[in-house]
Amino acid sequence: MKYAVIGTGAIGGFYGARLARSGQEVHFLLHRDYDYVRAHGLQVDSCDGSFHLDHPHIYQETSAMPACDVVLVGLKSTNNHLLTNLLPPLLHRGTLVVLIQNGIGVEEDVQRMFPDAWLAAGLAFICSAKTEPGRVNHQCYGSINIGNYSCPDEELIGRLIDELRQADITANPVEYKTARWRKAVWNMPFNGMTVALHCQTDELLRNEATRRLIRSQMMEIVRATRSMQIDGVDEDFVEQMLTTTDAMTPYSPSMRLDYDFGRPMEIDYIYSRPLQLAREAGCPMPQLEMLEAELRFLEQRKREQKGL
Amino acid sequence: MKYAVIGTGAIGGFYGARLARSGQEVHFLLHRDYDYVRAHGLQVDSCDGSFHLDHPHIYQETSAMPACDVVLVGLKSTNNHLLTNLLPPLLHRGTLVVLIQNGIGVEEDVQRMFPDAWLAAGLAFICSAKTEPGRVNHQCYGSINIGNYSCPDEELIGRLIDELRQADITANPVEYKTARWRKAVWNMPFNGMTVALHCQTDELLRNEATRRLIRSQMMEIVRATRSMQIDGVDEDFVEQMLTTTDAMTPYSPSMRLDYDFGRPMEIDYIYSRPLQLAREAGCPMPQLEMLEAELRFLEQRKREQKGL
Repeated sequence: MKYAVIGTGAIGGFYGARLARSGQEVHFLLHRDYDYVRAHGLQVDSCDGSFHLDHPHIYQETSAMPACDVVLVGLKSTNNHLLTNLLPPLLHRGTLVVLIQNGIGVEEDVQRMFPDAWLAAGLAFICSAKTEPGRVNHQCYGSINIGNYSCPDEELIGRLIDELRQADITANPVEYKTARWRKAVWNMPFNGMTVALHCQTDELLRNEATRRLIRSQMMEIVRATRSMQIDGVDEDFVEQMLTTTDAMTPYSPSMRLDYDFGRPMEIDYIYSRPLQLAREAGCPMPQLEMLEAELRFLEQRKREQKGL
Repeated sequence: MKYAVIGTGAIGGFYGARLARSGQEVHFLLHRDYDYVRAHGLQVDSCDGSFHLDHPHIYQETSAMPACDVVLVGLKSTNNHLLTNLLPPLLHRGTLVVLIQNGIGVEEDVQRMFPDAWLAAGLAFICSAKTEPGRVNHQCYGSINIGNYSCPDEELIGRLIDELRQADITANPVEYKTARWRKAVWNMPFNGMTVALHCQTDELLRNEATRRLIRSQMMEIVRATRSMQIDGVDEDFVEQMLTTTDAMTPYSPSMRLDYDFGRPMEIDYIYSRPLQLAREAGCPMPQLEMLEAELRFLEQRKREQKGL
């Protein structure tokens, strides 16, 4: 299949480069890194074996790109308004758009922009970062789950998963809602708390008080999903997330990096939207609401410090 | 009456010096500031009129002090274990010990140390700080409420209040439990949040998200006191606290100062004890529990940074 990658960063860059390495035709949209990658190619430093793409298909505008069978969107969700202009040149009648993004509600909002588009969620379980121009640093994990949101062609989803697997990526189809909320179980506590306390995941789990707090925040999500009739987000999964994170090397989640580098944080989709859904279901999540407020405060202060 | 002041800092120093200025016999226990005050006296810079005590009665040990009718304890509650040795020389059969301290549970614990002592809570509504040796900076407010905990002699409480008023201090008798918990309505949100977000009171109230959060934390206390059958802590009081704080100059509560200067924070009495009582009453306070956890984390990190 023909692939397009919008947002060639830590996530889009990694999965796109893996697909290209396996022989797929992958078209990358680049922004600041365009000149660098044209001159030097794209480097993936990876715990699973580093590799280099000498001459990837790269573009500065989607209008120059071909319509594709699969579009992998690796943009920060704070930039999703850009999709209005970015997406149309890449779509044909049966294009699958995979939103490999954080949070709850991105598919709903993109569907509103493109009522006929076929959408799926890409749930990446990966520790990676774009450390410098044209260079993705993949530290650990790397699997991706695909949750069908509005694609009527199940075979297309299956083909995507096959081709991801051929690219040595662990990929599985998952139930959309369950998958998004299971991801939130990790994302909501760790993204915000590493910003609020200016620390990494391991410090939060080593301190007895914050370890208990992280578990308690995760349990707020378990209770909220229960009241929304969403299956598969239970206490066992919480324990599994804690154990998995214990085993990780000290990690700064994407929101911590965004905050440190003065980029906008994905507060809307990682916090505000799921918090609103939980409230509407009659099961508010008070500690995660507090965390949202702390993040809003920190973001405003940062803006003021930058003189904006 | 004869007064002793243990902990001649922002609080004990202020009330003790006002009483001394009004002609009462006040004996001050000093620690680090002893030599300075012996040489230079005690200075109170005050919004209500600054003044100086040239030769206050000062001591380095309570064993050198006379037994007194009233002992004002202005220690940080983190030092209350010291009372075991500090208090006995100051007590006669009818001494009133007034704990002008933050939090919930201090009287209970001091009573356990001294089962026969007559105890009262001193609820100070004051913005003040000890800025340098022998110098108290009183910024605004200054009233004190006295809540009888275990003093069988109501007249003694009355006499204390009269003499405080003669010293130009607004003083009133109050119901002990209500008073302690009303104070917590201000103390629990603002002390911790100014530490967690490294800010002052005004910034928390100016930001829409944290203003809502502060109110929400205060409402947790309202609900908890209701389930403990404690009267007088209601939504109107919450609004009053917000309005009062809006009118204050930007303020760093004592816990923020303690944290910044590397002193232990009063987490036990300001957070852990009231949180425990609320849980036991079946009405936990999740956002304040989260704040406690954040403070425990920050305290441990500070200790580690200091190499302790």
